Amino acid sequence: MASEIRKVAIVGGGVIGAAWAARFLLGGIDVSVFDLDPEVERKTQEVIANARRAQIRLHGAALPIEGNLTFAVSMEEAARDADFIQESLPEREDLKQRVLADIDAAMPAHAIIGSSTSGLLPSKLQSAMRRPDRLVVGHPFNPVYLLPLVEVCGGDQTSAETIEIASALYTRVGMKVLHVRHEIDGFIADRLLEAVWREALWLINDGIATAAEIDDAIRFGAGLRWSFMGTFLTYRLAGGEAGMRHFLHQFGPSMEWPWTKLVGPKLTGELIDKVSDQSDEQAAGIGLREYEALRDSCLVDIMHALERNDFAAGAVAKAYRESLTGKEAVKLGSDCGDGHVLTGHTPVLPEWIDYNDHLTEHCYLKLFGDATDVVLARTGAGPDYVSSGFSFYTVETHIRHLGQARLGQKVELRSRVLGTDGKRLHLFHAMTNLETGALIATAEHMLVHVDAKAEKSAPAPDHITQAMQGLAAAQQHLAPPEGAGRSIRMPG
Amino acid sequence: MASEIRKVAIVGGGVIGAAWAARFLLGGIDVSVFDLDPEVERKTQEVIANARRAQIRLHGAALPIEGNLTFAVSMEEAARDADFIQESLPEREDLKQRVLADIDAAMPAHAIIGSSTSGLLPSKLQSAMRRPDRLVVGHPFNPVYLLPLVEVCGGDQTSAETIEIASALYTRVGMKVLHVRHEIDGFIADRLLEAVWREALWLINDGIATAAEIDDAIRFGAGLRWSFMGTFLTYRLAGGEAGMRHFLHQFGPSMEWPWTKLVGPKLTGELIDKVSDQSDEQAAGIGLREYEALRDSCLVDIMHALERNDFAAGAVAKAYRESLTGKEAVKLGSDCGDGHVLTGHTPVLPEWIDYNDHLTEHCYLKLFGDATDVVLARTGAGPDYVSSGFSFYTVETHIRHLGQARLGQKVELRSRVLGTDGKRLHLFHAMTNLETGALIATAEHMLVHVDAKAEKSAPAPDHITQAMQGLAAAQQHLAPPEGAGRSIRMPG
Repeated sequence: MASEIRKVAIVGGGVIGAAWAARFLLGGIDVSVFDLDPEVERKTQEVIANARRAQIRLHGAALPIEGNLTFAVSMEEAARDADFIQESLPEREDLKQRVLADIDAAMPAHAIIGSSTSGLLPSKLQSAMRRPDRLVVGHPFNPVYLLPLVEVCGGDQTSAETIEIASALYTRVGMKVLHVRHEIDGFIADRLLEAVWREALWLINDGIATAAEIDDAIRFGAGLRWSFMGTFLTYRLAGGEAGMRHFLHQFGPSMEWPWTKLVGPKLTGELIDKVSDQSDEQAAGIGLREYEALRDSCLVDIMHALERNDFAAGAVAKAYRESLTGKEAVKLGSDCGDGHVLTGHTPVLPEWIDYNDHLTEHCYLKLFGDATDVVLARTGAGPDYVSSGFSFYTVETHIRHLGQARLGQKVELRSRVLGTDGKRLHLFHAMTNLETGALIATAEHMLVHVDAKAEKSAPAPDHITQAMQGLAAAQQHLAPPEGAGRSIRMPG
Repeated sequence: MASEIRKVAIVGGGVIGAAWAARFLLGGIDVSVFDLDPEVERKTQEVIANARRAQIRLHGAALPIEGNLTFAVSMEEAARDADFIQESLPEREDLKQRVLADIDAAMPAHAIIGSSTSGLLPSKLQSAMRRPDRLVVGHPFNPVYLLPLVEVCGGDQTSAETIEIASALYTRVGMKVLHVRHEIDGFIADRLLEAVWREALWLINDGIATAAEIDDAIRFGAGLRWSFMGTFLTYRLAGGEAGMRHFLHQFGPSMEWPWTKLVGPKLTGELIDKVSDQSDEQAAGIGLREYEALRDSCLVDIMHALERNDFAAGAVAKAYRESLTGKEAVKLGSDCGDGHVLTGHTPVLPEWIDYNDHLTEHCYLKLFGDATDVVLARTGAGPDYVSSGFSFYTVETHIRHLGQARLGQKVELRSRVLGTDGKRLHLFHAMTNLETGALIATAEHMLVHVDAKAEKSAPAPDHITQAMQGLAAAQQHLAPPEGAGRSIRMPG
């Protein structure tokens, strides 16, 4: 079972292997890395530092406690107590066949192997193994610690259980498994990428366009759509009301046009020079690390953007975070034991923090505003009521800061009604550190019931007033909150 | 000159033509649409409504006053007083040649034509025109009102001036011009798209993968990268520290692998059925309009995400907005005529509004917090000081709401120092509607100087205290602000 996998061995610690290590570690799994490169430790740590920064921005406090990282002096040392081995060696069939057989011999009886190969067939890779049923391809995409896609493809001898365990493990660390059901060179994704790449090389070879122009042709147009829709859904929309069938009939004739040369050009020294020089020019002196940081920052922000739409990679990130935090038995709007209403319960999320990892000033008011909404929903003035054209507007707010909330901390908000008169609502919220119980901040609000269309205040309907009065009465036994009714002034 | 283009005629009002109309209108240019479809008016208005919603979310108050929209009963009526004609007819060379010659005959002497063709060569399209120098290809991408890319390509007889005018016009309405310097079937972008499309059709034809699986192979992996980096910059990073040259040498051999097919499969009735059925299944009963709305919402959020990184399509959107608002002579931190410090001057941005187009509650505190930062910077406690390990932390805040700020309104913030004692700073900010001068909200803050490392309050250095005292003294002639020192309580 994937949930029982406690240790993963990484065999081959290059760009891909190191990023795999980062994804497993950040998913709470112990990792042992083996690579012959004497600098493997430094390079891996650099990748992990980038990955940690990116995943904390993406998922914040929801991340589990990191796994333990070790470096092995031999493949055998890495594999002998591993539950899963991720192989990321160079793309040479003979090399992979030999090492996979060695791993098979070294690993425990229950372990299985995922190969990162981007195009070699699992049936061939497993041919020298003693237990070929235990090999499956798990082909990731760079940067592995951020892009969710992993292609899972079994060979002739791969067992269904192996495919299942590998898929569950990859899902467990936040990935989107694409099950490649038929073995084919390049699987699915790389065939598509290779088509673009070969056509792009032809365009440079023939002097039609430069590397920078070709990149612009993608990133300012179709690339924006591809990031969440792919090619078929995009063309379905292009077909308009008649859909895909219409599109195919309309654009079918263009299939005959000489629009691509799908065999790549010969990579002569001259063409390599041309492409490399254009790439240098495009990079404009900006270094690899700087571009990697920019790439990761863009990817995190795009995934957050897609999460707002609960779609594509955003939906995967959201589901992953939910799988990590679990379904806690917390119901906002319910009574706390002490007579307050529970109005907030959340880790401090990455998008709420400042450069210093503190909760940003205006995000305090976001959390307090959300708490106000919970009280309103509980008393019958929630979103349904608002869409009927009436609402409570905040007219006055008083916030006190008594502590700090940091990324990685869970905070709780508890609220009470200090008064209500059929038109006004006087609220008080307290935000505490869920672990220590320490008070972080308080907010006091006065709200007024308004007719939103007329844009003026109006008496609230009886059922809402009664619900608010009922809540106030039930909380009357509580001592007056410290800090209510304060005004700001200099001492002395 | 593009800046003198006041009216654009749209000839052909399908999906592409209607979206062109929307982009020009929302860019402040008058548009006349001609199409034989009796429903052209309804369909165009639907597209414009979508485009307006999306562009307002993207650019907010910066958008100019919309152009005037008319529908012409003939091509001649649309073209006769147009400065620019955008042709978006079906992709048939003979049809386009004939209509382009007719447009040429009908349009004013100074006008030029942009053709939306996605692959026909401009040299052929212009062959029947009396003034072939006035035709250029301006090939856009769906949805035209959001995706910035437009490929501009001249034919043998196109004049340099025509290319220049068309490019300037497209840039003026927020697009990214890619100058295609060599005529080639499919230009640049569609050759790349076509390569993906043909390979994807093979995968379905051969039963390897379904439409949904192929889309997943793109959108959870390379599609996310393509949305801001394209293919060459991506592979440069994949090459690691050795860069593109290393990548080419390493992956060169794979160019020989049979990873893509030569030409697209024959679009038989059977294959059309297969693709259409899979597409229906993928769409899962969700309708076209719903998917279009989701697509536009994702695109806007992605462009905002990229704008946070000042990269790719985000940089284009930002530059467009700046070109619209101009470089206003407003310097935050300077003295207003009335003794206050100017601490904010901004339109209400799309990312700050709620479902109701009002400035969201917590974004008031964002604007007030930014105003506090302006006062701190002016008195020597700006970002440089903060990075030295000291800072002023807000300990108490009091906000009053007196009006509303809406998307499309400019607001101004003015601030004063009410008191300072070498450790505390007492501030008061007022937010007004820049046009009407009406007071929207006020904020009063108490801040305390802290040693951030020790996490405790500490006396501020003399030069900062003196600057704050100087500011307070210079503002002492102002009447005490109405609403300072208030506390929240129920009346009666």
